[in-house]
Amino acid sequence: MNQSTNLKTARIEKISHLDYFNIAISVDCVILSYEDRRLRVLTMLSDLKEFAGLQSLLGDLVRPDEDLDSASYRVLLERTGLKDVYLRQVHTFGSVTRHPSGRVISTAYYALINGRHESLQLNDHALQWTPVKNLKKMAFDHKAILDTCLKTLREQVMDHPVVFNLLPGKFSLRQLQDVYETILSQELDRRNFRKKIVLKDWLTDLDEMEVDVPHRPGRLYAFREPSIKPISSVF
Amino acid sequence: MNQSTNLKTARIEKISHLDYFNIAISVDCVILSYEDRRLRVLTMLSDLKEFAGLQSLLGDLVRPDEDLDSASYRVLLERTGLKDVYLRQVHTFGSVTRHPSGRVISTAYYALINGRHESLQLNDHALQWTPVKNLKKMAFDHKAILDTCLKTLREQVMDHPVVFNLLPGKFSLRQLQDVYETILSQELDRRNFRKKIVLKDWLTDLDEMEVDVPHRPGRLYAFREPSIKPISSVF
Repeated sequence: MNQSTNLKTARIEKISHLDYFNIAISVDCVILSYEDRRLRVLTMLSDLKEFAGLQSLLGDLVRPDEDLDSASYRVLLERTGLKDVYLRQVHTFGSVTRHPSGRVISTAYYALINGRHESLQLNDHALQWTPVKNLKKMAFDHKAILDTCLKTLREQVMDHPVVFNLLPGKFSLRQLQDVYETILSQELDRRNFRKKIVLKDWLTDLDEMEVDVPHRPGRLYAFREPSIKPISSVF
Repeated sequence: MNQSTNLKTARIEKISHLDYFNIAISVDCVILSYEDRRLRVLTMLSDLKEFAGLQSLLGDLVRPDEDLDSASYRVLLERTGLKDVYLRQVHTFGSVTRHPSGRVISTAYYALINGRHESLQLNDHALQWTPVKNLKKMAFDHKAILDTCLKTLREQVMDHPVVFNLLPGKFSLRQLQDVYETILSQELDRRNFRKKIVLKDWLTDLDEMEVDVPHRPGRLYAFREPSIKPISSVF
């Protein structure tokens, strides 16, 4: 039998599955910043009666003519005024009952931003920076989304130079270690940290010192794009 | 103004966005096995006229009452007869034009299986193991899905004990190194590899030797669940 006699067109395929085309997709952005040894996430009170009084992540339904990544960049731009932000798709949440409006599947992204970025504009006064540790219960499955993004962030900070997005352009090793300790919820040995971070080849020594700090001024560094290492260099 | 006066119900929210609820979601599984220094993926010829003659990954539309993970385990079970398989969500592909039937968003998973698993049953004779290097063009965006899953696998094999799923229960360090070299497309130094892999604490020495091999018999090992290390142990 000729295989082509069994082929169906995409149109026929859709007609036989019309009840499957009844889903909406959203993006939810875990927008993180760092301040005073705390990791904070941008949240707002849910505007749904079903979740009255609970904080939700910033997200939106993906428009019929919009790609997933475009939707998440749109949410970020609309809410914060920022473009060119580090944004990464993490996981898609598709539990049947996760949304009271019907089947809405959500793709989660995390974004790391400098909370003092000069272009940052939180236009909507309903938006707030909430320390992640203060969030025990959220609207929808947003607490699970937040936790998944934080876990992914913790796994990635070792191998990928991402935390620099949380810092100003110039920073001291003390500041950098503070950020790592906050993300990992763990104190790190100062000498070991410095040795390991230098080996990673992520830093440029600016040959400048901190000023106006209440401790001995430290050297200032900037992030530099690392040279690509062969992936098997760990062996 | 009382904030609760602005709240809407989920039902109202849906009615105002009915044209958004017109999407289907699928899962696509990159089912990988290893044989003779080749990584192979389970494929079949596409049954859509639009992709006649092209190989596609194994996937299916997610049923209206089905979670994403359940759908991917169902695909795997229906196609291979296997349960309890290492399966991991990798990325969601949501390009507007990726599917000729309409808006179909697909969540990709990879599965690692032992190609000689005693329960493996490829019931459909249309299924075939295709060496990943032979796949230049595939149906839909399945080549991009395959490449993304392979990239993720390469990033994970260093830090997560996943390659054992590709091997029989007992294996030699030579076999293990072969699998790593195949995944990474790179030769690894034998002594360095052995030193590093032992440090990872993933192996149990079975105190047995290989038999019937055309080289000097090597010691046999089994995988053991590693003890949990603190995440910051790299510093």
